[in-house]
Amino acid sequence: MALFDNKERTNLEELGEFGLISYLTKNFALSQKSTLKGVGDDAAVLDPEGKKVLVSTDMLLEGIHFDLAYTPLKHLGYKAIQVNLSDICAMNAIPTQVTVSIGLSSKFPLEAVEELYKGIYVACEKYNVDLVGGDTTSSKQGLVISVTSIGYADEKDIVYRNGAEEGDLICVSGDLGGAYTGLQLLEREKLIYLENPNIQPDLEGKDYIVERQLKPEARKDVVELLKEIDVKPTSMIDVSDGLASEILHICKQSDKGCNLYEEKIPLDPMTFETAREFNLDPTVCALSGGEDYELLFTVKQADYDKIKFKMDISIIGYITESNAGCNLITKSGVVHPLKAQGWNAFKNGE
Amino acid sequence: MALFDNKERTNLEELGEFGLISYLTKNFALSQKSTLKGVGDDAAVLDPEGKKVLVSTDMLLEGIHFDLAYTPLKHLGYKAIQVNLSDICAMNAIPTQVTVSIGLSSKFPLEAVEELYKGIYVACEKYNVDLVGGDTTSSKQGLVISVTSIGYADEKDIVYRNGAEEGDLICVSGDLGGAYTGLQLLEREKLIYLENPNIQPDLEGKDYIVERQLKPEARKDVVELLKEIDVKPTSMIDVSDGLASEILHICKQSDKGCNLYEEKIPLDPMTFETAREFNLDPTVCALSGGEDYELLFTVKQADYDKIKFKMDISIIGYITESNAGCNLITKSGVVHPLKAQGWNAFKNGE
Repeated sequence: MALFDNKERTNLEELGEFGLISYLTKNFALSQKSTLKGVGDDAAVLDPEGKKVLVSTDMLLEGIHFDLAYTPLKHLGYKAIQVNLSDICAMNAIPTQVTVSIGLSSKFPLEAVEELYKGIYVACEKYNVDLVGGDTTSSKQGLVISVTSIGYADEKDIVYRNGAEEGDLICVSGDLGGAYTGLQLLEREKLIYLENPNIQPDLEGKDYIVERQLKPEARKDVVELLKEIDVKPTSMIDVSDGLASEILHICKQSDKGCNLYEEKIPLDPMTFETAREFNLDPTVCALSGGEDYELLFTVKQADYDKIKFKMDISIIGYITESNAGCNLITKSGVVHPLKAQGWNAFKNGE
Repeated sequence: MALFDNKERTNLEELGEFGLISYLTKNFALSQKSTLKGVGDDAAVLDPEGKKVLVSTDMLLEGIHFDLAYTPLKHLGYKAIQVNLSDICAMNAIPTQVTVSIGLSSKFPLEAVEELYKGIYVACEKYNVDLVGGDTTSSKQGLVISVTSIGYADEKDIVYRNGAEEGDLICVSGDLGGAYTGLQLLEREKLIYLENPNIQPDLEGKDYIVERQLKPEARKDVVELLKEIDVKPTSMIDVSDGLASEILHICKQSDKGCNLYEEKIPLDPMTFETAREFNLDPTVCALSGGEDYELLFTVKQADYDKIKFKMDISIIGYITESNAGCNLITKSGVVHPLKAQGWNAFKNGE
């Protein structure tokens, strides 16, 4: 599980801050017409061409959001971009630019930072997003990554969290709980490795959920699909903290309630099996696991026909009036009030 | 020099992430017409009203960019915003929105985080800037602050680093070297305090340079002044790494040289005196000290009459052809090639 061997090791001091930035960003081409000026001045200059501007930002800290014992730096760079793009997609918009700031301790040689930037590069290229700015600094405290993403949309297309109406169908893309069960697997293999470094990690056949954890994808394709089938959600959010936490955000901000059906929650068979292996309830993994970066949204009942046969979208419940509360109807028909037990960023702290 | 007493101490865990964000941002009103949606959704929504968008981002790390032994948290919050607004001003634009992400270790009680946000609040209110988003997380590694600032400008008004022409006058706002000499003073008093905690810090009469270090101001007023007197600089940058480093950026990106006159570099008498006290050359403090956050810019000679009597702007040299190099003409008439010895973010690391 070694992150990088030390055969080639160039110290960051040799390049200096400006040298490092130019070195790391030299392969990043600008592809967006809206990017008038990228890296290299006091600020980036963007042309929204009459559209509204969406801005979102996230911070990822070593030891809180990622564990370098099992997170390859290239995957980490990729994920740092994806989790941010996901927020722009959740507004029903297409992300177009990012800025990336990183704090690096001297334990990272240049070759390691390059791996991180390779992942950033792959994510930017695949999603057609320009890297337009950032900051690079040393850190006394481990790796720090802060990404800001930017996108554009016509005002009429923007979807907020607060627009859900009674009777709207609750939909979610992809499947849920995979990232969380993948994390359990990686944590288990890390413990085994720490006890006996000669044992190789056993992740065989578990690629899908490991990838869900290490290499999530922002669902830009879902935003495109919704446009294509002419469906504008009434509300939308991305699933970063778990289904329960997210639907509660939508209900609270829309001043509504909801009924979610346990049997409708999309689970990949591997998520189901692995959860069972760990004596976890697969439904709880979906409700409270988080980091799936799927899109959770509500649509008018009138849009049912447009959405019902879309392979990658599940209808998992409907919006009710506020007084009815937020409920999960279990497979056995029992009604449970939903609680946000999502990942709390302050419970992982020291 | 205690940062905060522990009489009142509310643990961050008690609030949780969403509770903390709402608590900290509850007093922040939105004042910009261009802010359609601030904190509370997946992304902020901004309306540039046909203008171009400027975006800049900076990361501040404990132990690298600030020392909590002598930096009050309120000042730190204020400074974190100002250093970022300064980048937007350096494009000849007015900043209008910021996002703020912070990583907090559990050594910070809620009352400390509130102090930090009070400083952020004062900076935002004074500069008429809206806080529109961010991220709050725990940190295993001390305090981490990442700010992204946004502004708008008509394309014709934006000033880049690369527009300086031969014969242009080199101008700088305010005075230089103060932030660096202020830092020397604070570092000295910290050492004295560490040796003998009964000795109170002696900063008497040094308010100006201490404030230059702890509470810098983005020169939005200079951007406004330039507009008022109808001068569009041919190039501009803010002085974060020292005058030498910044003029070299302008010359390199404009493919030009320059002559700077030592006697013209604006120094406050307190900067001069304090540098002498520390056996430092005051000119070197201005050239290589950094963190003054003044604006360095070039103007056409034709604009000389408009700028010559502006109290707060000094003309310190002129742009030459590229082959002439970048030079400092000392008070005794000796010509020295300018070197960037600005603060290197990777030399302070572990």
